[in-house]
Amino acid sequence: MKKVDSIISAHAILPIDSDEAKILKQHALIIHQGIIVDIIHQDKIHQHYQTNQHYQLNTHCLMPGMVNAHTHTPMSLLKGFADDLPLETWLNDYIFPAESEFVGDEFVKTGTTLAIAEMIKSGTTCFNDMYFYSDTTAKAVIKSGIRAQLGVVIMQFPSNWANNSDAYIDKGLEIYERYQQEDRLTFSLAPHAPYTNDDKTLIKVAELSQALDLPIHMHIHETKQEIEDSIKIYGMRPLARLEKLGILSQRLLAVHMTQLTKDEIKLCQKFNISIAHCPQSNMKLASGYCPIVDLQAQGVNIALGTDGSASNNDLDMFSEMLSANLLAKMMKDDATKIKAYESLQMATIKGAIALGLDKKIGSLEIGKSADIIAIDFSNIEHNIHHNIVSQLVYSMNKSAVDYVWVKGKTLLEKGKLTTIDCEKLSNKKHHWQNKIARFYAGL
Amino acid sequence: MKKVDSIISAHAILPIDSDEAKILKQHALIIHQGIIVDIIHQDKIHQHYQTNQHYQLNTHCLMPGMVNAHTHTPMSLLKGFADDLPLETWLNDYIFPAESEFVGDEFVKTGTTLAIAEMIKSGTTCFNDMYFYSDTTAKAVIKSGIRAQLGVVIMQFPSNWANNSDAYIDKGLEIYERYQQEDRLTFSLAPHAPYTNDDKTLIKVAELSQALDLPIHMHIHETKQEIEDSIKIYGMRPLARLEKLGILSQRLLAVHMTQLTKDEIKLCQKFNISIAHCPQSNMKLASGYCPIVDLQAQGVNIALGTDGSASNNDLDMFSEMLSANLLAKMMKDDATKIKAYESLQMATIKGAIALGLDKKIGSLEIGKSADIIAIDFSNIEHNIHHNIVSQLVYSMNKSAVDYVWVKGKTLLEKGKLTTIDCEKLSNKKHHWQNKIARFYAGL
Repeated sequence: MKKVDSIISAHAILPIDSDEAKILKQHALIIHQGIIVDIIHQDKIHQHYQTNQHYQLNTHCLMPGMVNAHTHTPMSLLKGFADDLPLETWLNDYIFPAESEFVGDEFVKTGTTLAIAEMIKSGTTCFNDMYFYSDTTAKAVIKSGIRAQLGVVIMQFPSNWANNSDAYIDKGLEIYERYQQEDRLTFSLAPHAPYTNDDKTLIKVAELSQALDLPIHMHIHETKQEIEDSIKIYGMRPLARLEKLGILSQRLLAVHMTQLTKDEIKLCQKFNISIAHCPQSNMKLASGYCPIVDLQAQGVNIALGTDGSASNNDLDMFSEMLSANLLAKMMKDDATKIKAYESLQMATIKGAIALGLDKKIGSLEIGKSADIIAIDFSNIEHNIHHNIVSQLVYSMNKSAVDYVWVKGKTLLEKGKLTTIDCEKLSNKKHHWQNKIARFYAGL
Repeated sequence: MKKVDSIISAHAILPIDSDEAKILKQHALIIHQGIIVDIIHQDKIHQHYQTNQHYQLNTHCLMPGMVNAHTHTPMSLLKGFADDLPLETWLNDYIFPAESEFVGDEFVKTGTTLAIAEMIKSGTTCFNDMYFYSDTTAKAVIKSGIRAQLGVVIMQFPSNWANNSDAYIDKGLEIYERYQQEDRLTFSLAPHAPYTNDDKTLIKVAELSQALDLPIHMHIHETKQEIEDSIKIYGMRPLARLEKLGILSQRLLAVHMTQLTKDEIKLCQKFNISIAHCPQSNMKLASGYCPIVDLQAQGVNIALGTDGSASNNDLDMFSEMLSANLLAKMMKDDATKIKAYESLQMATIKGAIALGLDKKIGSLEIGKSADIIAIDFSNIEHNIHHNIVSQLVYSMNKSAVDYVWVKGKTLLEKGKLTTIDCEKLSNKKHHWQNKIARFYAGL
């Protein structure tokens, strides 16, 4: 009889550990020191394990915590600040001026904590971030108990954070080194986009990525305009330029990837890159469409991201999963592609693969970290389930997320956050909201 | 000082009573005998009104209850029963056999009540239904307190409900006559689709619609196949055939309307028809796209529908509103079309117009029925709101619906249903779920 930290028994467990949907009924996860040490039928628990912490979730389904493969967490403070505008107006007349005015330690601290609160409540246990002041984000991640991969943001334009490409790299790498020992924090090199970085910098990024074995997290092919501009300036499309500069590799997570040609899809396959598909952001900004069915047919790994709260406007991976699924069916004119289970894979294990974290998270397997969410099926509108997988994708929403664990620690319990003081956070947020509103009135 | 039935004070009221978004801060709705009798600033309430029932909703926004312009409520029992299949397989191998096996009074009673529970909880106060056994649906509507327009289903094929077109019409009209006195119930003629009705029947429907001043509720141009078949059989596209048969008029609510040509868009405008756009169902079944931006540019009234739970798979108008908005932006390659407020109009007043009920519901105005929903903004992920309209469309979801009133009666109070016994309903549902699961295993 082994004493373990906790046991989670549930009506159903969806491990997402293979390409076929598998549902374990009346099973339990055995958790010790933050790791899933066993997955067994509930009848056998008492023969093998004892614990002081046994969750009995008879109306719940357990699944891996979701991986949000692309976001800008501090932008939660700009949620609903500017909508229904063309991308250029939105960026140049609203987002950039607001960022220039406000972005700093305190803005990032409040914005990121707000985003983390929203993500935990909606079942996300790991996020891939790209923003300035990542040291502040790192502290918020550590404090909250969530898991994250933080980007070393790199661009050639000055911002409140750094003045030039080298300064961005130096500041970012210093933070990366500072947090080497934090198990829940990993880092990527995050050159913002092809059009905000010169060739010299991108070559340096490619070299650093190889030398430090760091993933690259980059917006690529977000809009038609970006591609036209690249052809004008460099005589080639962005993806071709990135190939030339050595950016394409298995370590690359390319975000957005709209307007792809057939040859570019083959290029993605050839270099085994991952893609962070952000359907709601792409639709909301009318950026274009990432052909995920064609990419998946070539074996390209597709993860899912919400993008930042200013262009979505939420961090809800359930809603994103549904949008990705429905939009794919419509764009391919084929109701069989993609299937519900594939959407769940994109939101979990494929996100983990994209971040290079699939040995540790993304599925419920013995030896992996106990990053788990429990979805409650007891509400009247949810408790019919001819098919749990279909139900999770097509019928449920984030409000059914009832428990969240990261490394075995409970971050959400019966829908309540355990590591974030919502009242304090709410006050800070209102302070920022008022400041931003005054600024907005003056725009 | 006038004594009134109830007063609802809220942080904000969004009346949706004009084409410009208007937000009333710190106002109250004064309700008497089911009608909104006044809308005044909270400071003035005590000078004019007294009541025993004063709702003080300091963190809420009030808006008109949503109008679901197209659904098949009893199909809630088939939610998740068959997904990710081509339309023809889905219909012929799953839905039709299941309906043939199960549809009857008890199936409709449980399925509709389930749907009503889901709709009330997600902020829908009126739905436009098309299904067999509408007498049973009528009883469920009356009992629950919701509002509905029920279709007199008409088709030339036999079903558990009727054997031929005339029998469908006779049975349906008898029910229509029986419920003439029910204020919350109205009726439409609902010929299922062009391809399930012969010319003779459709001519009769057009005549009846005019004689009885009844709306027509009909699936039209759902798929490419439907159009190709019509050209083969009738030598013309469905819409042309319906024009010839006299079906097109202001009384027509055409559901789906994909694959429209420019001339067909003009035809919609010429006859002043309304359209029920069902984006999630169209995407999920890969049916095609209804060009709502082009239609709206011609002045065509676009309402929103979820379609039935078997092809969505929920009855969530918040999610539908978001899908309609994002998809329109993407399809038009224009982030400014449609705007957040237009999505809210489609989900409320434009639905009311489509059902011929806009004198009574669809907006919060003095003299209209008190069909109201209260959205709670107090959750940490919702309580930033640079812009309430944007927040409602892009950031909130159905879980924030906290109160629902129809004709001034409270149907949802602090998220709890007041007129439906969920435990009893849940038991009935599980009975059906098991029956359907056994049938499904044998398919």
